[in-house]
Amino acid sequence: MRHLLSTSELSRDAAIDLLDISEDMAAVADRENKKLPTLRGKTVVNLFFEDSTRTRISFEAAAKRLSADVINFSAKGSSVSKGESLKDTAQTLSAMGADAVVIRHGASGAPAVLAASGWIDAGIINAGDGTHEHPTQALLDAFTMRRRLHGAGSRGKGLDGVSVTIVGDIVHSRVARSNVWLLKTLGAEVRLVAPATLLPVAVHTWPVTVDYDLDHALGESAPDVIMMLRIQQERMNQAFFPNPREYSNVWGLSNARWIGLPATTLVMHPGPMNRGLEISSAAADSPQSTILEQVANGVSVRMATLYTVLTGNREVHA
Amino acid sequence: MRHLLSTSELSRDAAIDLLDISEDMAAVADRENKKLPTLRGKTVVNLFFEDSTRTRISFEAAAKRLSADVINFSAKGSSVSKGESLKDTAQTLSAMGADAVVIRHGASGAPAVLAASGWIDAGIINAGDGTHEHPTQALLDAFTMRRRLHGAGSRGKGLDGVSVTIVGDIVHSRVARSNVWLLKTLGAEVRLVAPATLLPVAVHTWPVTVDYDLDHALGESAPDVIMMLRIQQERMNQAFFPNPREYSNVWGLSNARWIGLPATTLVMHPGPMNRGLEISSAAADSPQSTILEQVANGVSVRMATLYTVLTGNREVHA
Amino acid sequence: MRHLLSTSELSRDAAIDLLDISEDMAAVADRENKKLPTLRGKTVVNLFFEDSTRTRISFEAAAKRLSADVINFSAKGSSVSKGESLKDTAQTLSAMGADAVVIRHGASGAPAVLAASGWIDAGIINAGDGTHEHPTQALLDAFTMRRRLHGAGSRGKGLDGVSVTIVGDIVHSRVARSNVWLLKTLGAEVRLVAPATLLPVAVHTWPVTVDYDLDHALGESAPDVIMMLRIQQERMNQAFFPNPREYSNVWGLSNARWIGLPATTLVMHPGPMNRGLEISSAAADSPQSTILEQVANGVSVRMATLYTVLTGNREVHA
Repeated sequence: MRHLLSTSELSRDAAIDLLDISEDMAAVADRENKKLPTLRGKTVVNLFFEDSTRTRISFEAAAKRLSADVINFSAKGSSVSKGESLKDTAQTLSAMGADAVVIRHGASGAPAVLAASGWIDAGIINAGDGTHEHPTQALLDAFTMRRRLHGAGSRGKGLDGVSVTIVGDIVHSRVARSNVWLLKTLGAEVRLVAPATLLPVAVHTWPVTVDYDLDHALGESAPDVIMMLRIQQERMNQAFFPNPREYSNVWGLSNARWIGLPATTLVMHPGPMNRGLEISSAAADSPQSTILEQVANGVSVRMATLYTVLTGNREVHA
Repeated sequence: MRHLLSTSELSRDAAIDLLDISEDMAAVADRENKKLPTLRGKTVVNLFFEDSTRTRISFEAAAKRLSADVINFSAKGSSVSKGESLKDTAQTLSAMGADAVVIRHGASGAPAVLAASGWIDAGIINAGDGTHEHPTQALLDAFTMRRRLHGAGSRGKGLDGVSVTIVGDIVHSRVARSNVWLLKTLGAEVRLVAPATLLPVAVHTWPVTVDYDLDHALGESAPDVIMMLRIQQERMNQAFFPNPREYSNVWGLSNARWIGLPATTLVMHPGPMNRGLEISSAAADSPQSTILEQVANGVSVRMATLYTVLTGNREVHA
Repeated sequence: MRHLLSTSELSRDAAIDLLDISEDMAAVADRENKKLPTLRGKTVVNLFFEDSTRTRISFEAAAKRLSADVINFSAKGSSVSKGESLKDTAQTLSAMGADAVVIRHGASGAPAVLAASGWIDAGIINAGDGTHEHPTQALLDAFTMRRRLHGAGSRGKGLDGVSVTIVGDIVHSRVARSNVWLLKTLGAEVRLVAPATLLPVAVHTWPVTVDYDLDHALGESAPDVIMMLRIQQERMNQAFFPNPREYSNVWGLSNARWIGLPATTLVMHPGPMNRGLEISSAAADSPQSTILEQVANGVSVRMATLYTVLTGNREVHA
């Protein structure tokens, strides 16, 4: 795998390979010394055009566990703010010896442009681009589902027949998009639930079913997994958005709704949470919640991604 | 030692252990290669809700000398500014594999809340919380006093009978509080000198003597140590604060007062200094000043703290 | 070499030594594992009073390739903004164990003041001070010219007889000054081209020829190297500055001017570029452009500088 730009382009085999390598990486995290020498001498640049401490730290921890050198490049106060183009920034990092560039960008497609351009030799890892994709988030979500539903040793398996309900602001969510494509590839059944104004116009072309009412969706049949998306508070005052109380009442995972779920239904959230808005604290902190496992698995999945992009290998030689 | 939250909870034995381990660490600092492999594979997160480059760098240098991986997390522009709770931030860092969290927070007690919560496995080190405590500062101050007064090889010793006069804005100073508790535990005699408006209401319950006039305090008997606190310039216009000239005249360590001290009296300051305000340059740069030794010792004490929190050991195996 | 403050103080031998060591470092960059253990246990502090992500990252990559620990200190939000003096900041970093301080400062001469003061033990490397010097930029430029004109194996050689034309805002450019002194030392012939208002008053005392018109300068004889300086856009509205269109027409390396150059003339720019203003994209991306080589060579030259300052050696023992 030369780059990781989107989950829509991942074959089932490639996706399952990444999940299997993530298992190897997770095993390392349980050791006393969590470091592997695998990427010693490699340089990973975190090129962040938008703030995202959480994602940046996760990649940084992943790279350091593999003994790579990490350089953080926040576009604020940099040449970028002096008007430098993405091309020149990328070529500069490449010339300085970056072996992989982890990029977060406000414009959908920026990582793909970089990768397709031939401008640089470095492997490109999309850490979130506009409303397009956030592929390592979807991989860590799938990894978390597989571990919980099939056990940690379930190498080679997909998510065939697993039912996943994703709830919230779908139209603006790169997390939702990456999950939809990857879950479909792995064999899961995906249902989206959102107010009509928060669904993309083209949602009927997606491989999903759609519901506008959470109670209706949960009433039909309880899903194996319910994934609540984060509400961007700055969107709350916009005309297409329900007001917060209405949102919480109709589309939030309230205590009442959570209690109505089977104890086997996994509760997921990409974080950071707005407790009391899209998810109740009781749901977030329950045994069926995977929220902290998602964070921990994020490091393993990003180790697997960096490893695969930087070595081209599909197996770990620890 | 599971966490280091305050000096008020340190037993005399535990405090002296930390000072003795700091001696071992200081010996490493004198070597050509200042690095020890001791914490290789451990991850230390600097979680700073307030800016403090000086303290952050000191912990970063300490962790790197012990070969730990360091991740800096400035709360600005992070999930925290998106409304994430301290609990969720801490649990996220823990899930990512943080073995120790060095926390600077504007709210008194935040590190203790974290440690008591059971939310996370990581060791918590308080790097300054509100007006509450700054325990590693007090430890480095005590370490500096012990080295100067008893010599570098004085393992096992406390500060029995040492007289320490602390001057300045006591009420807002976590440095003063941490020093008062630790110095008392180590057997020193502490006198506080400040305008009445800069002393805490409950100071009569503290194990100290109090004076409102620096000349009077120094006139009675010269202390072994005089510690000048930093004046926060942003407080200078508030009603409870003397004006700068009055402060400097009455409570500053002016040249005249410094010349009047015995050459054996140590002059201390936690830095950064306002030269000409709370301390004169002649005093700050004199042979009896320990100000740069305090900085150097800060790294050794923080190495000892990280080592103790992360290994649970009370002796160094280098 | 104890410090690197300016190119004006570098002897020809010392400069050629640095270029030769840079060749050794460039060879390491071509290996699979780009890391050398040479500076393991050393601490390099990047002390940046002005933002410069590009230069900071280049030094950070260089230090990490040599296995040094790197601590980034941005003066914003630090003690410096609380009024701490350069002396106290530097002494603090030295006390914390900094072996080298890479300093970028808005005031011309700040690094020299630090080095001359005797305040600190650390080696000082000037990473750009006011309008004074940027010596590693000039070294990487000279290294790039030598590699292109004489080949990678040309150890021991200078730039005797090489003609270099530097175009742009000379008066404000530390890059231009550092290049003028170093190129002269290495035996090159330097011509400066700029509007009269962008040349220093004392330019007639410099070891250069001067032209006010780029077409005239190029018409006389094509240089071996043309170096376009970056235009600081924030200066564009000032009275001494031509308007952008006029600047571009008269002093820019337009396509027309670039096509008129021999294919052997190297096109250089320190970056980041304003494409279409001081340089056309065709010129910047042409085979005769060295712009990305300059970036790559920057890491090698900074490795050589750190190595020389921190070990005092003039040869690499890899």
